[in-house]
Amino acid sequence: MKRSEIVKAQARAAEMLKACNIEITEQERTSIEVACFGLNELEIQGLELITYVNTDRYCAKELLLFPLQTCPEHLHPPIGTDPGKMETFRCRSGKVFLYVEGEATKSIQGIIPVGSEPYYTVFNEIELNPGEQYTIHPGIKHWFQAGADGAVVSEFSSTSRDEFDIFTDTRIERMPTVTED
Amino acid sequence: MKRSEIVKAQARAAEMLKACNIEITEQERTSIEVACFGLNELEIQGLELITYVNTDRYCAKELLLFPLQTCPEHLHPPIGTDPGKMETFRCRSGKVFLYVEGEATKSIQGIIPVGSEPYYTVFNEIELNPGEQYTIHPGIKHWFQAGADGAVVSEFSSTSRDEFDIFTDTRIERMPTVTED
Repeated sequence: MKRSEIVKAQARAAEMLKACNIEITEQERTSIEVACFGLNELEIQGLELITYVNTDRYCAKELLLFPLQTCPEHLHPPIGTDPGKMETFRCRSGKVFLYVEGEATKSIQGIIPVGSEPYYTVFNEIELNPGEQYTIHPGIKHWFQAGADGAVVSEFSSTSRDEFDIFTDTRIERMPTVTED
Repeated sequence: MKRSEIVKAQARAAEMLKACNIEITEQERTSIEVACFGLNELEIQGLELITYVNTDRYCAKELLLFPLQTCPEHLHPPIGTDPGKMETFRCRSGKVFLYVEGEATKSIQGIIPVGSEPYYTVFNEIELNPGEQYTIHPGIKHWFQAGADGAVVSEFSSTSRDEFDIFTDTRIERMPTVTED
């Protein structure tokens, strides 16, 4: 991903936070993580993140999704004595459709990214509006997509070790390289 | 504490959240915890809390402080194999003065509650404004007080077991009884 695209996405994410009155420091603003998953279509499959704290006991992040942006399907595996990351998503602004394992919802509201259909396999839909939350247990496949106005989602969790996440789409690199313009 | 006082404090806390655009569900609103610590002076020494999630791995709360309201000095002790609660306070709105162990700040900005002076013993001051945060390690004595406009503080932490908190003021009951009007 090009440095200029990252800077642009960071500015857009910061604007979304400002619009819903969530304050961040200047240091946090300039280090907003822009995850394009190595797929080169950030606005379709991508995610912006601010990690407030990540200790060996707990983690808290703000997740930012542009309109209809999708975080691809993945799970958090056990690592050593850690049974895998457990996480609670709390919608703060906008709307997010979360999909987890379980009975498929008959007609889902999300749109599966074109060309990536084989990599979306769980369709139990949970709609989260501001003030609503859902907890995802370790090892459960999940993906999520913002509604038409984007979404700001607080994530409360056990320790994050994103580099171990297992994506259904084997083309994905969770930690892709940045190229200077 | 009387039921009517609790309901009044819940309504006031909910208004503070509304003023800073933090959405909660109706169920969360009616179960806002009002902690008066058995001291019968809620507006001086007290705290309002919403626990979003508290699992055996992590916890997330919203803490609400009325103008100049103080959460009395306490610490989180080890419990069994748990080394004690570790917590990160992130100011979302207003201002909070946090006091922890360490070198005493020469002239603190907070006001020690009159009549409770012997129970405030740590004075290393950390001022948190919106977007600023601080992590308190287990076993560290701390207390905090809102500025003149009150404060909304997100707490990210390891598992909460509030009933084991150790307060410097031995008159305090963390889980006092509610009396019907």
